Amino acid sequence: MKKTYTSEDIASMEQRYRANFINSIIGFKALNLVGTRSEKGQENLAPFNSIFHVGANPPLIGMISRPDSVDRHTLENIRKTSFYTLNHVHEGMVNQAHQTAARYELHESEFDAVGLETETIANFHAPFVRESRIKLGLEVRQVMPIELNGTVLIIGEVTQIALDDEFIADDGFIDLTKYGSTTVVGLDAYYRPELLKRLSYPKPNQPLTEIK
Amino acid sequence: MKKTYTSEDIASMEQRYRANFINSIIGFKALNLVGTRSEKGQENLAPFNSIFHVGANPPLIGMISRPDSVDRHTLENIRKTSFYTLNHVHEGMVNQAHQTAARYELHESEFDAVGLETETIANFHAPFVRESRIKLGLEVRQVMPIELNGTVLIIGEVTQIALDDEFIADDGFIDLTKYGSTTVVGLDAYYRPELLKRLSYPKPNQPLTEIK
Repeated sequence: MKKTYTSEDIASMEQRYRANFINSIIGFKALNLVGTRSEKGQENLAPFNSIFHVGANPPLIGMISRPDSVDRHTLENIRKTSFYTLNHVHEGMVNQAHQTAARYELHESEFDAVGLETETIANFHAPFVRESRIKLGLEVRQVMPIELNGTVLIIGEVTQIALDDEFIADDGFIDLTKYGSTTVVGLDAYYRPELLKRLSYPKPNQPLTEIK
Repeated sequence: MKKTYTSEDIASMEQRYRANFINSIIGFKALNLVGTRSEKGQENLAPFNSIFHVGANPPLIGMISRPDSVDRHTLENIRKTSFYTLNHVHEGMVNQAHQTAARYELHESEFDAVGLETETIANFHAPFVRESRIKLGLEVRQVMPIELNGTVLIIGEVTQIALDDEFIADDGFIDLTKYGSTTVVGLDAYYRPELLKRLSYPKPNQPLTEIK
């Protein structure tokens, strides 16, 4: 049945129901495992799905961190060391990726706990996930508190990208399905996307064509 | 072939190649049409794919706007009127949604230009897209310039949600494939996702189960 929810309806939802509902309603999200290493050398791995494009030149990626969750190890490590990695989650590692969200103790490495391997690339300070097929190394550029709800916006510049270049198109486009990358709805639902089509650059009064 | 790209490699890419590459590398993105109405009553519709969850209580959604593009009508209308809508793009309206990105003149409505209909819900100031199956009405809460590259972060609170409630699970989760919502890679590639599984809340040393 067609229904309209107002602010009052949303505010009166049971907390867990609202978390699922609002996290779902926004649409499909990228899922990345964020790898960090503390000043003392302790590795940390956590899933983030509020990750977004900020700019291509320089290559900037933003993400939202909750201050009051397991993410805090990630945030603290980024603040103190400046470096972190984003690692795509393919179909074969969905369960391990999901499990990294469990509240492990500070001294436990999520890599060990869930059975993923660390990988070092080009002496980058933060650990990459060996099993991932697309791996980004970032250096933090800005950390901005969002006073509306106490979350934190982290913007980093991509300084390392590791992937198999076999599936990069001539124009720079990357069909992520070739790498098995998954997408997420809400807090716990994983999807395999299938390419429908690429469309040409849109101009007024000119028909679109498919890019093959 | 396995390849690692450095900052120098990225900086030396041809501009359009880099735009495709960096916009792809971040992962699958939600695509929403953002509807606004100017103070003079002119309607505007533009696609945004840098949209992300900021919080569930209150329900906050963030998005990144380029200052130097067709988006500027959107940004200006949001600044002046406070209201905007996010409208999911289903498979049947991908071409029209893509076409809204063309650089139409200020006095032209993208609704008319691409053949989508406006819809008014509960006297909300900004227009919804009738053809969309999931529609959100937002009131802006914060507009924050990102000095790193001149983009703008817009955070809004969701005050209206219109959808068919048939596919909302008992726990608030919404399987967006039931609404035909698409996901995007890069600037122009559209995907149809297929549900792999939902996984239980992760706890240390406890096996995950699938939520049916």
